[in-house]
Amino acid sequence: MSNPILNPAAICQIALVVNDIERVAKNYATVFGVPVPPVIESGPASETQIAYRGKTTPGRAKLAFFNLGALQLELIEPIDGPSTWREVLDKNGPGLHHIAFKVPNSKQTSQALEKIGATTVQTGDFTTGNYSYVDATQPLGAVLELLEFYPPR
Amino acid sequence: MSNPILNPAAICQIALVVNDIERVAKNYATVFGVPVPPVIESGPASETQIAYRGKTTPGRAKLAFFNLGALQLELIEPIDGPSTWREVLDKNGPGLHHIAFKVPNSKQTSQALEKIGATTVQTGDFTTGNYSYVDATQPLGAVLELLEFYPPR
Repeated sequence: MSNPILNPAAICQIALVVNDIERVAKNYATVFGVPVPPVIESGPASETQIAYRGKTTPGRAKLAFFNLGALQLELIEPIDGPSTWREVLDKNGPGLHHIAFKVPNSKQTSQALEKIGATTVQTGDFTTGNYSYVDATQPLGAVLELLEFYPPR
Repeated sequence: MSNPILNPAAICQIALVVNDIERVAKNYATVFGVPVPPVIESGPASETQIAYRGKTTPGRAKLAFFNLGALQLELIEPIDGPSTWREVLDKNGPGLHHIAFKVPNSKQTSQALEKIGATTVQTGDFTTGNYSYVDATQPLGAVLELLEFYPPR
């Protein structure tokens, strides 16, 4: 058996896209009996270096997070410009968007997933790392996010 | 604050629907570097007492499971008759279907979720418990599965 591409236990997030994150975040807070989390906005493209389907894009999103034991539930509302978040929301309506795995090297992992039929659709930076969204619907029935944190933790 | 409806740490599954479970299960096994799991079939409706949108249905599914640390990844291929699995696969194509939470009483929890705008779309039994699928897309941006195990474990 060749080296695994992903560590299954490195799952760290389940994410969904919605049209109205403040309302949905409030509902989850009620359902879970926890405080309403802050809604934050991803930075401007000049900071995040976001690229969507091979082109730079002003795509941004509002984000909110809940703790689900060992992993996070991420709520995403797309704002500004094209993005995988907007694409999926427009295509299917509100719903689950991706599952995320921590990886040591997102570029290496996305290339390995491309070899089995996946497509890297969006990449970008955040304060402490970078991410790649890989549309693995054809081989794996899901969109995956690869999260690379630096320094490794 | 009123009593919470769900314990966020009781998440136990992420599930996706696909057209060809044997192929996708093989791909996940390669990606995770684990053996290909067995593909099982849900029992006949006479056993599972499955109801979909208020009516009995012959709906069944092929299922395969992978361990993702503290939770399971469930692959579902709908077979026979209408079901939420078939509905979502026909509407959106292969993709993420639901996140599942263990609950002490699925009926009580689904009724509480209905009060905030969710709809119970499918219910059924399995060997050691029962399940309810609750379409909470409107209030929570996702379909949830409530899993009640007896005896509690």
